[in-house]
Amino acid sequence: MLSAARKIFAEKGYDKATVRGIAAEAGVDPALVHHYFSSKEGVFVAAMQFPMMPADVLPKILAGPRERIGERIVRFLLTMTSAPEAREPIVALLRTAMVNEQAAGMLREFITDAILTRVAQALSIPPIRMEVAFAQMFGVLMMRYIVELEPLASADTEELVEILAPTLQRYLTA
Amino acid sequence: MLSAARKIFAEKGYDKATVRGIAAEAGVDPALVHHYFSSKEGVFVAAMQFPMMPADVLPKILAGPRERIGERIVRFLLTMTSAPEAREPIVALLRTAMVNEQAAGMLREFITDAILTRVAQALSIPPIRMEVAFAQMFGVLMMRYIVELEPLASADTEELVEILAPTLQRYLTA
Repeated sequence: MLSAARKIFAEKGYDKATVRGIAAEAGVDPALVHHYFSSKEGVFVAAMQFPMMPADVLPKILAGPRERIGERIVRFLLTMTSAPEAREPIVALLRTAMVNEQAAGMLREFITDAILTRVAQALSIPPIRMEVAFAQMFGVLMMRYIVELEPLASADTEELVEILAPTLQRYLTA
Repeated sequence: MLSAARKIFAEKGYDKATVRGIAAEAGVDPALVHHYFSSKEGVFVAAMQFPMMPADVLPKILAGPRERIGERIVRFLLTMTSAPEAREPIVALLRTAMVNEQAAGMLREFITDAILTRVAQALSIPPIRMEVAFAQMFGVLMMRYIVELEPLASADTEELVEILAPTLQRYLTA
């Protein structure tokens, strides 16, 4: 099932892939896919071995005081990616997207639908502000874990929260 | 000469490569390499077909009022990368570094020596603040030109300067 899903997402991208099409590729009933994964997002997250589903996590991050939303996002992303087994599938997709056009399209559609649009709507901010916030955290993760710039690569989570949270807070307050 | 330089930089990384070693690989006198490229940085920039040399550009960006340094950096990077022929060699090195460990090491050493350390010293800021500033601009360029997030990919330079300059200004003021 999950290899059928990976095939369909790679071929069609995230937007055009459907639970029905993935079920057909796997030779199973779409109701079964819905039963186990509840949504296309759930299938994608399982197929990519992501450690969490944005639809579950975002409401928790968005709840709580608006004046500390930047801090909550930065701390969540740095904490989640501090565990190699949670970080690796995410970093793998981000790296592949840098060198493969199909993967870049799939990443663009998934993060736009599952993350960026939801947060921008929930906070009533222009989408571009959410995109530069995402770019900041993407850049930090790549420089910390792939390029291994020092002292960034060895910095502890709370030091980075202190530096980065005001940036995210400003982007998400507009 | 430049293919000899690329070979040496790939094998030894930026820090351990020397003008002498590159000249030996190319079978020419080191004085000739110094004459044409003036420094290891000059050889690297020529070998990678970069559109500019940090040693020439940074003093111009660092001159001028400190309270607008963020704006000058953001505008310079966005303007330079708006021309495909200037952008492509830079984006090519950044992409390769994401998937190739040798290239990641070479990028880390080059940007640390040629850009990050110089700016952090000139402005008397902790290196980590310069690194997250770099991560912000790296992330924006990747999301704009590789992942093509919209509206970020189509936004004009001045709109992005307005959003990003205060972030860089804050990182570089500490």
